[in-house]
Amino acid sequence: MQKVVTFGEIMLRLSTERFLRFSQSKSFNAMYGGGEFNVAVSLANLGIQSEFVTRLPDNEIGECALIEMRKRNVNTNNISFGKDRLGIYFLETGAGTRASNVVYDRTHSAMANLEKGTFNWKEILKEATWFHWSGITPAISQGAAEECLEAIKAAHELGVTISCDLNYRSKLWKYGKEPYEVMPEMLQYSNIILGDIDTAYFMLGHNKVNPNYQDVKSLPTLYNRIFEWCPNLQTIATTLRYSVSASHQRIGGILYDKKHIYDADIKEVTPVVDRVGSGDAFMGGLIYGLMEYQNDIQKAINIAVASCCLKHTIYGDYNLVSTTDINNFLAGNNNGKVSR
Amino acid sequence: MQKVVTFGEIMLRLSTERFLRFSQSKSFNAMYGGGEFNVAVSLANLGIQSEFVTRLPDNEIGECALIEMRKRNVNTNNISFGKDRLGIYFLETGAGTRASNVVYDRTHSAMANLEKGTFNWKEILKEATWFHWSGITPAISQGAAEECLEAIKAAHELGVTISCDLNYRSKLWKYGKEPYEVMPEMLQYSNIILGDIDTAYFMLGHNKVNPNYQDVKSLPTLYNRIFEWCPNLQTIATTLRYSVSASHQRIGGILYDKKHIYDADIKEVTPVVDRVGSGDAFMGGLIYGLMEYQNDIQKAINIAVASCCLKHTIYGDYNLVSTTDINNFLAGNNNGKVSR
Amino acid sequence: MQKVVTFGEIMLRLSTERFLRFSQSKSFNAMYGGGEFNVAVSLANLGIQSEFVTRLPDNEIGECALIEMRKRNVNTNNISFGKDRLGIYFLETGAGTRASNVVYDRTHSAMANLEKGTFNWKEILKEATWFHWSGITPAISQGAAEECLEAIKAAHELGVTISCDLNYRSKLWKYGKEPYEVMPEMLQYSNIILGDIDTAYFMLGHNKVNPNYQDVKSLPTLYNRIFEWCPNLQTIATTLRYSVSASHQRIGGILYDKKHIYDADIKEVTPVVDRVGSGDAFMGGLIYGLMEYQNDIQKAINIAVASCCLKHTIYGDYNLVSTTDINNFLAGNNNGKVSR
Amino acid sequence: MQKVVTFGEIMLRLSTERFLRFSQSKSFNAMYGGGEFNVAVSLANLGIQSEFVTRLPDNEIGECALIEMRKRNVNTNNISFGKDRLGIYFLETGAGTRASNVVYDRTHSAMANLEKGTFNWKEILKEATWFHWSGITPAISQGAAEECLEAIKAAHELGVTISCDLNYRSKLWKYGKEPYEVMPEMLQYSNIILGDIDTAYFMLGHNKVNPNYQDVKSLPTLYNRIFEWCPNLQTIATTLRYSVSASHQRIGGILYDKKHIYDADIKEVTPVVDRVGSGDAFMGGLIYGLMEYQNDIQKAINIAVASCCLKHTIYGDYNLVSTTDINNFLAGNNNGKVSR
Amino acid sequence: MQKVVTFGEIMLRLSTERFLRFSQSKSFNAMYGGGEFNVAVSLANLGIQSEFVTRLPDNEIGECALIEMRKRNVNTNNISFGKDRLGIYFLETGAGTRASNVVYDRTHSAMANLEKGTFNWKEILKEATWFHWSGITPAISQGAAEECLEAIKAAHELGVTISCDLNYRSKLWKYGKEPYEVMPEMLQYSNIILGDIDTAYFMLGHNKVNPNYQDVKSLPTLYNRIFEWCPNLQTIATTLRYSVSASHQRIGGILYDKKHIYDADIKEVTPVVDRVGSGDAFMGGLIYGLMEYQNDIQKAINIAVASCCLKHTIYGDYNLVSTTDINNFLAGNNNGKVSR
Amino acid sequence: MQKVVTFGEIMLRLSTERFLRFSQSKSFNAMYGGGEFNVAVSLANLGIQSEFVTRLPDNEIGECALIEMRKRNVNTNNISFGKDRLGIYFLETGAGTRASNVVYDRTHSAMANLEKGTFNWKEILKEATWFHWSGITPAISQGAAEECLEAIKAAHELGVTISCDLNYRSKLWKYGKEPYEVMPEMLQYSNIILGDIDTAYFMLGHNKVNPNYQDVKSLPTLYNRIFEWCPNLQTIATTLRYSVSASHQRIGGILYDKKHIYDADIKEVTPVVDRVGSGDAFMGGLIYGLMEYQNDIQKAINIAVASCCLKHTIYGDYNLVSTTDINNFLAGNNNGKVSR
Repeated sequence: MQKVVTFGEIMLRLSTERFLRFSQSKSFNAMYGGGEFNVAVSLANLGIQSEFVTRLPDNEIGECALIEMRKRNVNTNNISFGKDRLGIYFLETGAGTRASNVVYDRTHSAMANLEKGTFNWKEILKEATWFHWSGITPAISQGAAEECLEAIKAAHELGVTISCDLNYRSKLWKYGKEPYEVMPEMLQYSNIILGDIDTAYFMLGHNKVNPNYQDVKSLPTLYNRIFEWCPNLQTIATTLRYSVSASHQRIGGILYDKKHIYDADIKEVTPVVDRVGSGDAFMGGLIYGLMEYQNDIQKAINIAVASCCLKHTIYGDYNLVSTTDINNFLAGNNNGKVSR
Repeated sequence: MQKVVTFGEIMLRLSTERFLRFSQSKSFNAMYGGGEFNVAVSLANLGIQSEFVTRLPDNEIGECALIEMRKRNVNTNNISFGKDRLGIYFLETGAGTRASNVVYDRTHSAMANLEKGTFNWKEILKEATWFHWSGITPAISQGAAEECLEAIKAAHELGVTISCDLNYRSKLWKYGKEPYEVMPEMLQYSNIILGDIDTAYFMLGHNKVNPNYQDVKSLPTLYNRIFEWCPNLQTIATTLRYSVSASHQRIGGILYDKKHIYDADIKEVTPVVDRVGSGDAFMGGLIYGLMEYQNDIQKAINIAVASCCLKHTIYGDYNLVSTTDINNFLAGNNNGKVSR
Repeated sequence: MQKVVTFGEIMLRLSTERFLRFSQSKSFNAMYGGGEFNVAVSLANLGIQSEFVTRLPDNEIGECALIEMRKRNVNTNNISFGKDRLGIYFLETGAGTRASNVVYDRTHSAMANLEKGTFNWKEILKEATWFHWSGITPAISQGAAEECLEAIKAAHELGVTISCDLNYRSKLWKYGKEPYEVMPEMLQYSNIILGDIDTAYFMLGHNKVNPNYQDVKSLPTLYNRIFEWCPNLQTIATTLRYSVSASHQRIGGILYDKKHIYDADIKEVTPVVDRVGSGDAFMGGLIYGLMEYQNDIQKAINIAVASCCLKHTIYGDYNLVSTTDINNFLAGNNNGKVSR
Repeated sequence: MQKVVTFGEIMLRLSTERFLRFSQSKSFNAMYGGGEFNVAVSLANLGIQSEFVTRLPDNEIGECALIEMRKRNVNTNNISFGKDRLGIYFLETGAGTRASNVVYDRTHSAMANLEKGTFNWKEILKEATWFHWSGITPAISQGAAEECLEAIKAAHELGVTISCDLNYRSKLWKYGKEPYEVMPEMLQYSNIILGDIDTAYFMLGHNKVNPNYQDVKSLPTLYNRIFEWCPNLQTIATTLRYSVSASHQRIGGILYDKKHIYDADIKEVTPVVDRVGSGDAFMGGLIYGLMEYQNDIQKAINIAVASCCLKHTIYGDYNLVSTTDINNFLAGNNNGKVSR
Repeated sequence: MQKVVTFGEIMLRLSTERFLRFSQSKSFNAMYGGGEFNVAVSLANLGIQSEFVTRLPDNEIGECALIEMRKRNVNTNNISFGKDRLGIYFLETGAGTRASNVVYDRTHSAMANLEKGTFNWKEILKEATWFHWSGITPAISQGAAEECLEAIKAAHELGVTISCDLNYRSKLWKYGKEPYEVMPEMLQYSNIILGDIDTAYFMLGHNKVNPNYQDVKSLPTLYNRIFEWCPNLQTIATTLRYSVSASHQRIGGILYDKKHIYDADIKEVTPVVDRVGSGDAFMGGLIYGLMEYQNDIQKAINIAVASCCLKHTIYGDYNLVSTTDINNFLAGNNNGKVSR
Repeated sequence: MQKVVTFGEIMLRLSTERFLRFSQSKSFNAMYGGGEFNVAVSLANLGIQSEFVTRLPDNEIGECALIEMRKRNVNTNNISFGKDRLGIYFLETGAGTRASNVVYDRTHSAMANLEKGTFNWKEILKEATWFHWSGITPAISQGAAEECLEAIKAAHELGVTISCDLNYRSKLWKYGKEPYEVMPEMLQYSNIILGDIDTAYFMLGHNKVNPNYQDVKSLPTLYNRIFEWCPNLQTIATTLRYSVSASHQRIGGILYDKKHIYDADIKEVTPVVDRVGSGDAFMGGLIYGLMEYQNDIQKAINIAVASCCLKHTIYGDYNLVSTTDINNFLAGNNNGKVSR
């Protein structure tokens, strides 16, 4: 039986009511999310046993984050508690030509103050079959980066499959290290990478190449170099996103396993209920697809796209769709007919 | 002066806030609706005297349903009260590629527990000019089906015009009868039928024919057979609905009176505020159109389409549009300009 | 340093929750707005010192309007207080094919009961560089029209730039005067006019000419006559609005300065969060553009269009966008990508 | 069978969320109420056939008021419609030592602009057994006062029982008449009066006497003079209200029928959910009590007090209690035990 | 380490916003609760491992109940799923002299349709140290009563401590059995009983004795007879509740262990935020107290009273207080001072 | 004309809906407050020109705080902007026996990171007549303490009256200094101190004396020593607060001016809408009273108590009462009668 462990930060998200600007808002909706936690929830909803490892402050706000994990059936047995604060981000939801706006207030968080050696990864991962991390954790702080590398090494030693969502965030990486100083060592152990080609090149310390994703045949050559730099890499996937407006996205995906390139059809996504976390939903769908459909890789990438599209209709950071929802989508029942 | 009586079930609708999934919802909006009640409200708003006949539980929730009828100017003089429960349905509103989801909790309702002979139809219908029922009532229970037939027969004897919305619901019909065992007798008295050709064929016990509604000329032949099976039938209409997504529908309509076939233009409906009850709004508009524009059948079907389109912009089960709203729509003022 | 003074009425806006009809609403959102006030807020948000002059009732509701001005950094030093009521308008927000609906309850307001001579315009305008008024104020009452003329004359004498948004409202003009009896004297002092050609012709007492705005070259001839009638006119601009539905607008703009005609590209605006005040946002953007980009008139009209488009995504009567928002829009970053 | 007709003004009430001050409020709860309408609703809830006569503006806000009447089962057959506005009042709910605050915006309302002769009272009252009015209507305007007198005279001629709640409002009576110029003629036809002794003396043109309601025996002498001035008077009642704080009231009542004086026990009312309309609830309970318990006058005044107390626990202007609620209260089951 | 298993029904609770009557409510707050589940949550919050066993419908509403359990850290490993409905109760919150009102809609629920033998109690209870049931489960249906007896017998055989809250509900017991036919067999295995003396006598088939709880010394004699009838009984406790009004309660408690009688001080509880579930909070506190303070029985009953009092300040069915909250209360810090 | 400048931190307050615990809350009401800002608002509402000086982060959340100041008519001309975060506190509102709970998240705030010399106090205070600070600012950080001392010294040199609210918060003072190391130098310049005797003794480095405030005559001796330690002190006042429960407080006050001791009556405050900031409301009332009623010191302390009591009925951190509200309270009109 599959068990996925993800490691990262969970934040309190404070978002204005639909379409209000910050200065109009007299209240915030409070939710909890974060890239790697969102992946854990996605997988739990798809029936996979999943666990999230993080550090939480030892106060009532940290407890709320813990309750959110339990509520979504994510295992919380290895959470570390400290006296620090929970990271916060403020979200103003855009519409049409006005983009959503994020204000981060995540410095000095419990996770950023993490010290190497906090977790016993050998113990945590002993029953895991999959370990997932993302490029956000090494971007938070030196301690978080070091602990993440510890986890990756332990997973590698235990033979656990390792996936990484590159997730480059320019507003992070403020603690004195550049991605190319940190990421290559971490990525060399990873078996699955999600990210676009230029982000991978950049994080691995190479010049960007501005790929043309419409010309699918041109991509294997570009992907191949990443395989060279990452000796354990088996699969790389890229989310294709064309942003018509804040309310209208077009979503597709590409997957390359060193032998074949798989191309999922572009889907129209309108209206957008909540864009945040749609990349994590893609990642969750991809992990699920690769686990369950090892002999049907095209289906795996299709599931990732379906999961990502459906996420745009779900309020909050994480995806709330079942395998039934995914299957209906893939069967073409994505035109909104009511079943009754 | 026209007076319409409709007969059916009214339910408590508990819907999540816009776009929330059930598991995210800490409250439900409470509204009251049901196919035949929705038609009664539509007509009341268009200035027609209308009455709704049903059975309500003798408790505070039943009283709330009663108040809803009064509020919308629907006559409630012949409601029957019992000790049973009010049927409930839970509604999760979809968006884009995620369809709305309905969970029924309507078994053992006051209406399902109805016994034949509860209502004195001769008395109830004595001032009526029109009686409307739908395929939902005979699908609920044996008792409801029998009482509905009583009403139809009484209306027929009194010379009251009878309309039926076929309204096939596969999740009902659980009490041991198939539609073809019950509907033919009921439909033979009906003067107006709303439904698509295959549903009519199915309910009347014939094989489906998969009609091509784009090829309008091919339809009279198919409709004619229904006229053969239903000797009192004068008019049959079909709602055309193309579902682009949960948020985008295309609506048209076809009407056949055995002589001519009338075809209303397809209208774009986006965004969809609330899809539920849009078929009932079509039915309400059709009854109104046939009553008021007997010599302009094209206008009657146009009104039905206008009513259906406008309903998609109204929250709740029933339509809330006036003749002014309909006329503005038909005059082409459907592009959303503010009048001031 | 620039300082803009605007003069007009501010009202309490009572709007139903999104998409609810009046008869469904158990509460109203309360906001405060009015054409000329909205322009003042637009400019304050763009960093221009702005002041609003009006008359408010001397009660708690008037105080709420005053607080709204302060909150939005609009100078309130010259407000007059009286015992009358604050004008109200009720707003039912439309969607798709159902237009928004406005019910005015603004008669007998403090502003309508204004008497000529209430304000000392020489004093008020002594540090102003720009004075803005609109066709709404002379439409309210004789007293408001007379006081507005006083303000215009004082501004003219002081060499203050004068702009006017023609803003024809057929539901006003009820006090016994027609626009052509009042507006020509007022417009002759104006340096900038915003309005379509036929409204200008109508208000200046001439027959409408039904211009073809797609044929841009044909427009200077038509605009030139307005320059003849208004000797101080330097610039005239027209908002182009194509209403696909209540939820989908297309916005462009044209500006003519007697020498060149400038044409801003049509932008798609969907969904529409709040259409009210989008004309005032155009006006605010235009004033800002003409102040800041005197040597780049094309940019001025582009800013006006950007401001108008972005307003459609903002809830309430007035625009809440910064120069950063405008610049992002003009740089093509109007596709809704989240910055993080 | 009893049928009560009441005549007066209905207003839109816009109240802040619980305990917010006006300047904190971004929305208003919208309800509809008015002294005489509240009495009609009270009676309808107690099972008495009741009708409300008023004048409403011919717009959507007037229609909302009409729907509210229907919803509460109040007959609306004789409503007059005009082009004027619906009166409004703004309510800020107090707590503890801070009183609630009312801002009236009811001038120029449809009811205030009423002209004598608008209603055909002989027709309206022909099936009525009781007519109720209050001192608010003659305080609004000359026209409202004159029409109210017409109604009273017609009721008197038809032998309909007439009740009046004196309801003195110092903020009204602004149209040039004093109460003593108008009320005596109207009160001489009234059979039941609700009000305190000094208000009655004042409205009938006599000096106040500052009665001591604790000394019950002293009251008949004072009441008797009112009987002298009002030849048709049969019963007079006074609500006793001791206001501990905005959240804590003590309520009792006294009734005198020229023979005996009846004294209802003081009840503690805390917390106060909504104080507005509690006097109307007393009046409604009194009418119901006098109708149903002609031989048990003590019970009639007890019902009035019970109705008034319970109203303080009901949000909105009008009372929503059934005879079951009243009976439970009178049986001493007023300590809040849950039945289950 | 202690582990408590509770068995019973969980319902969807639909409550009106604070103080609204059913007929005023356009939405319901949705929560999940039930006597035995509430005890499980109380214990989980106090740090005790707890599990709830029930039957849920196999639909989205059942899933919501399941999520609620997880969220509150209650073990859900032995839930049974069926196709039936989730029981519902509607709650109208009272205030002051108006009591709260409950409308049950729980017939035909998954739990009521339970068949004996559904659960493998030997397996479920094998690690349990405590089993809790209440008088509600045998009141629902024959099947529920039989299964509950199975659980009790298994617990008895395994040496698990058994507690019962008598919880008599007159609106249940509709399936043909009286309490005295069912309860005695079940109670004979119970070690701890919570209930008042007369309820115990009644359920055990004896005449009520109307005890005087103020005369504490008189109680042992009365309690002793219950010990005679229930051979395994070790402790019996009674909640003392004096209802001043729906908003003001006085709470105390008595405990008798056949040797001593313990009396907890009466505490004032005002205002009441939510009364529902306060008895379950008493039970939860009692179990916790008896587990943790076996040598300080007075403290055990004090904890039960503290838990019950604090519950009245918590919205929803179940208690949300920690041991810190309890200890603060017992230390006299119950006067509402803010810690900062 | 009087002008008050206050200096301190403003925070974002995130509070749960009334009475919900943190773990139940899906949204937070967002308000802005802080001890010294609250005093500034109190004074602005009482008609005094007031200015608040602080440091805000240069982001949208800081801008929201700025807007809040403007909205409440507090001068913001000397705000400093930095890149840090705005301090946050989470508030769970208690009821009855459950106290409110505050979770601070204010470390690393813009104000805590303040560096000495940020503000030009001579310039800021040149038109001020009063400067107010509190014991919170020196408790935040070394930099804040140093800058506060700078402000105090400048005020002293300019002859500006200086007031201090001692405001001891045990959860602060974490940067390495004890109050007695910092406060004495700051307090020696202060002319008015608000605080209880033991807090003053403690902060000034002396042993607590446990005064008996009921024995008013015993207090001057104790207060006199504070006058000895603080050579510029003219007036000292103490708020008396007896906490019956979280929902019921008793408030009084004592003032000593070295000659007389003034004692304001204890007032009952129930229910408590919002306790936070009631001490600041006392301070604001005291400053106003001392400014306006220099010859009626009893009135000054009465105003302080009235302001404090009324604050308990106002939602949010700061007081929203006018001089009219205060005068009504002092005139005994504090029993909640509605004016109409």
